[in-house]
Amino acid sequence: MKKSIPQQVNAFSVDERDAVYRAIFERRDVRRDFLSKRIPQATLQRILKASHHAGSVGFMQPWDFLVIREKDTKQKVKQLFTLANDEASKRYRGAKGTLYRGLKLEGIEEAPINLCVTCTRQRGGPNVLGRSTIRETDLYSTCCAIQNLWLAARAEGIGIGWVSILDYDALKNLVGIPRPVKLVAYLCMGYVKEFSSNPDLEKAGWRKRLPLEQLVHYESWGRKNGNGTLKKVKNG
Amino acid sequence: MKKSIPQQVNAFSVDERDAVYRAIFERRDVRRDFLSKRIPQATLQRILKASHHAGSVGFMQPWDFLVIREKDTKQKVKQLFTLANDEASKRYRGAKGTLYRGLKLEGIEEAPINLCVTCTRQRGGPNVLGRSTIRETDLYSTCCAIQNLWLAARAEGIGIGWVSILDYDALKNLVGIPRPVKLVAYLCMGYVKEFSSNPDLEKAGWRKRLPLEQLVHYESWGRKNGNGTLKKVKNG
Repeated sequence: MKKSIPQQVNAFSVDERDAVYRAIFERRDVRRDFLSKRIPQATLQRILKASHHAGSVGFMQPWDFLVIREKDTKQKVKQLFTLANDEASKRYRGAKGTLYRGLKLEGIEEAPINLCVTCTRQRGGPNVLGRSTIRETDLYSTCCAIQNLWLAARAEGIGIGWVSILDYDALKNLVGIPRPVKLVAYLCMGYVKEFSSNPDLEKAGWRKRLPLEQLVHYESWGRKNGNGTLKKVKNG
Repeated sequence: MKKSIPQQVNAFSVDERDAVYRAIFERRDVRRDFLSKRIPQATLQRILKASHHAGSVGFMQPWDFLVIREKDTKQKVKQLFTLANDEASKRYRGAKGTLYRGLKLEGIEEAPINLCVTCTRQRGGPNVLGRSTIRETDLYSTCCAIQNLWLAARAEGIGIGWVSILDYDALKNLVGIPRPVKLVAYLCMGYVKEFSSNPDLEKAGWRKRLPLEQLVHYESWGRKNGNGTLKKVKNG
């Protein structure tokens, strides 16, 4: 990473490249310690614009964003979380159960903004370019948009937590999302004083980060680079 | 964007923030004009590491990466594309059909690296935290990892194109991806001389970018900010 790619038009400088990596490595899934500080509308717009500039299958742009600030709505969503989480926690027993129940898994009421990101699957009509072979590519595009949003927020000093322990159908009813529109993500957003150096679940000892080399294959599945030997890769 | 968030630990400078936005806005889905220049292993590793540092449901890290450089494999994949694209092109008639057949939709053989990104849905066992309510969150996590990869590549001067006009099951057989592992993306990667200012499909007049304000709702679906009036939002 000593210098820019030679001769490329509009190459990133080393500093710019490092900033992109910084956002990627310092992005966290934030569920605690949100500050009450308001997110200015202009900042929110920048973040949403970043999300909207993800690529999408057939340039379908299937996403919508629903911004929730009202306390009453957040309280109702929190109730949905509590119901779903009581159910989910039954799956863990013994030490894992104790660990699970000690985790903070949402910041619904503390975060100044809650955000629904949806995917309108009918957008663009029946023949979206590139989607006839793989129908779910519209959902994939929406997730790419979510990652843009997450990284932009990190660069703005705003933490985001994705809450999936919720009955999304009940949630859709609550905020009036039409039945054919898919709710992909429920996000809590707010400024934080600092970002944790590691994922919360890693710090809590829930799971370890996998070594990257275990996840990279060359030419065919299970084949490792250099020596050309086959090595069995665990799916566990 | 005049100054950093006050008092935040490790806030991004304005320049760093702008670099993150730059990567987001200048990332393109690249299907043409790849340079033959080799991607160094160290660069590829940085990009894959960036991908691996996406958040994942329950810290599941369900992704794997299969790097393809062999010409023979690319030729076979290109044949799969041609088959799928001949079929797909039948969906478009008249002027749209002519436009479709003039589009360059893949760079399989030209790109120095083709990359499969997969999702191993069994990883982490039957009870992945946060996944009991929404099973497909593992696929969502994988797509977030893909967006990391895409942005890191842009910062490195490397273009990526996502090819979805392929029979992914035939492709899995070709490169030995086990049946229970889901192939999420087939990507073509390579240095490019420059990145297009706009998405190819927008430039070709295939579809227009939607106005962001049409996609943002406040408090409940269809409600626009400020005046509190309800406005019907098109799903088209």
